Amino acid sequence: MSLLTRPKLEIRLDHLVDNYRQLAAIAMPAVSAAVVKNDSYGLGAVPIVQKLGQEGCRHFFVAHAAEGVKVREVVPSADIYVLQGVGEDNISDIKKAVLTPVLSTPEQLCFWESQGINDIKPILQVETGLNRLGFRLSDLHALTENQKKNFSFVMSHLACGDNPSHFMNEAQLTQFKQARRLVADVSASISASDGVFLGKAYHFDMVRLGAALYGLNTAPYRVNQMKPVLFVSAPVLQIVALEAGDFIGYGATYQTTRPMKMAVVSIGYGDGLPRALSSRGQIRFNGQAGDIVGRISMDNIMCDVTQMPDLKAGDFVSILDDVYTADHMGEQAGTIGYEILSNLGKGGRFCRSYKQ
Amino acid sequence: MSLLTRPKLEIRLDHLVDNYRQLAAIAMPAVSAAVVKNDSYGLGAVPIVQKLGQEGCRHFFVAHAAEGVKVREVVPSADIYVLQGVGEDNISDIKKAVLTPVLSTPEQLCFWESQGINDIKPILQVETGLNRLGFRLSDLHALTENQKKNFSFVMSHLACGDNPSHFMNEAQLTQFKQARRLVADVSASISASDGVFLGKAYHFDMVRLGAALYGLNTAPYRVNQMKPVLFVSAPVLQIVALEAGDFIGYGATYQTTRPMKMAVVSIGYGDGLPRALSSRGQIRFNGQAGDIVGRISMDNIMCDVTQMPDLKAGDFVSILDDVYTADHMGEQAGTIGYEILSNLGKGGRFCRSYKQ
Repeated sequence: MSLLTRPKLEIRLDHLVDNYRQLAAIAMPAVSAAVVKNDSYGLGAVPIVQKLGQEGCRHFFVAHAAEGVKVREVVPSADIYVLQGVGEDNISDIKKAVLTPVLSTPEQLCFWESQGINDIKPILQVETGLNRLGFRLSDLHALTENQKKNFSFVMSHLACGDNPSHFMNEAQLTQFKQARRLVADVSASISASDGVFLGKAYHFDMVRLGAALYGLNTAPYRVNQMKPVLFVSAPVLQIVALEAGDFIGYGATYQTTRPMKMAVVSIGYGDGLPRALSSRGQIRFNGQAGDIVGRISMDNIMCDVTQMPDLKAGDFVSILDDVYTADHMGEQAGTIGYEILSNLGKGGRFCRSYKQ
Repeated sequence: MSLLTRPKLEIRLDHLVDNYRQLAAIAMPAVSAAVVKNDSYGLGAVPIVQKLGQEGCRHFFVAHAAEGVKVREVVPSADIYVLQGVGEDNISDIKKAVLTPVLSTPEQLCFWESQGINDIKPILQVETGLNRLGFRLSDLHALTENQKKNFSFVMSHLACGDNPSHFMNEAQLTQFKQARRLVADVSASISASDGVFLGKAYHFDMVRLGAALYGLNTAPYRVNQMKPVLFVSAPVLQIVALEAGDFIGYGATYQTTRPMKMAVVSIGYGDGLPRALSSRGQIRFNGQAGDIVGRISMDNIMCDVTQMPDLKAGDFVSILDDVYTADHMGEQAGTIGYEILSNLGKGGRFCRSYKQ
């Protein structure tokens, strides 16, 4: 028997590349950009950009300029777009790393023009129905012909692209085309991963692949075609035999109704596992699922492993794998797989590895 | 008007020290150890241990040995305890950094003894009702007299210490005393922050200060006596005038019922803000609260700032402060302040500062 203490996190770059190829093939001839913001949804922007660069990806989206600086070190000649735009707190990073801002407000455009940077053509973001960042139609009318020529792309973002029958998709498409007519002769992009599956009308010149690249199902109306990228497992620290009537965990919220074989597993909300999975989530071992019982602690979970006679201390149980994915966990935790990846991915206590 | 893009995170070390002094005074003459596991609940173990070391704190708890290695660099002569115990994957760190394992199972004790380390006396953790890690009473009976002498402390952990009228507290105290009698002449510790407020009977020789140190209310049956330690704010990227009937955010889940002044603020679940706050949470500006409207995105939130006529792009709105704390946010998000600190604290995109 071995004794182990640290949870493991594995990122399957081979699956990520498969996802990229599959998505890029659907989107062709549109260019496939990769969205690597938020440290690639928590999974590690540096190794992921490296891998995608080898695949021929030449367009990367980050949210913040500071993220773009790290990406620039990996892909010296790629285009790197900054979604949060430009301001006094990131202009030096933008200049230093030659980043392309996505300008979403007339004020940002004004600030950008004051910088006198002529070798970078920013992206113009227009708002078409999400009501998040972007130029409104009235703002577009105020642009001069000269200003319009200085953009590389006009882009927008779908609010309901994961639901093909939602009225919002066509409404946004119509709005986007209207905006495009106001800013002619510029390339266009409206789709993230979910828009790729909505068909050619949504592809334009570039699609921005994020969630689906990382294995999330952005077309939840059918079985996921993507391969999972994040795998998490954790070692059993202790196996205990409980009697009927025993309480488990903080607040004594769980009481056993029968004798139980319980495992204490070395992972908790301090590692990004959602505390919302208390007495709801599951672990897996040899194809068998076991319930998380009681409240999730910062460093540990307790699990009902009565149906796992072979499980012993030192064994690894699965937290995320190809059967139970970030999407499944998100649904159980009352959120979405994006937040699951983001929080688990940031866990600083995992033994972390990348499979090429 | 200034344009800014990055959210800010400030850690008030001055408040942390005030909390430490207040708690240590209550616990005296018991020794006050600091729980700095999980990178000090996300707030940064290195600066926090440094500060507490200057305050005279000489006992630190981490969960994983790898965390202990970092703490060791800051406090060369302190005692550093590893809650997850010992195993093949951390024994080299434990030796290298002279860490003291908390042994919770007979197997861990056996492994520890096989290492022949004589200059470190481990802690013996006993299980008294939480049903998490720890020796059960039957395990204690199997210990030899020689083994019992080799521990520095016997410790346990309360399940319901935040509720003084919960039957579990006294039950655990009784169990703990029984365990202590089996392992005589060894120092004892059962209380974390919450136990400090349960009175002298729970203090024994050492208390382990975590949550309350970081400003959380571990005695929620009365007004918080601790000062908040984590302050978060984020800049407004865009102000937009919406009409009645407009949809906001992903899934178009929010529809305005009147004209609204809306702010797009540069923080999202990618920064550790719980997505569960979608259409539930709030931001503050000049003493006024505004609702988060629609779903929280990875990088942005949309807020109803109709009641904030002065608010403009570039202004910072407050996310966590001394009015709306991690405890309040935890309650709104259906979780606890501990998870809030842990997730926001790990956000890699903040401008981070420490106030001495």
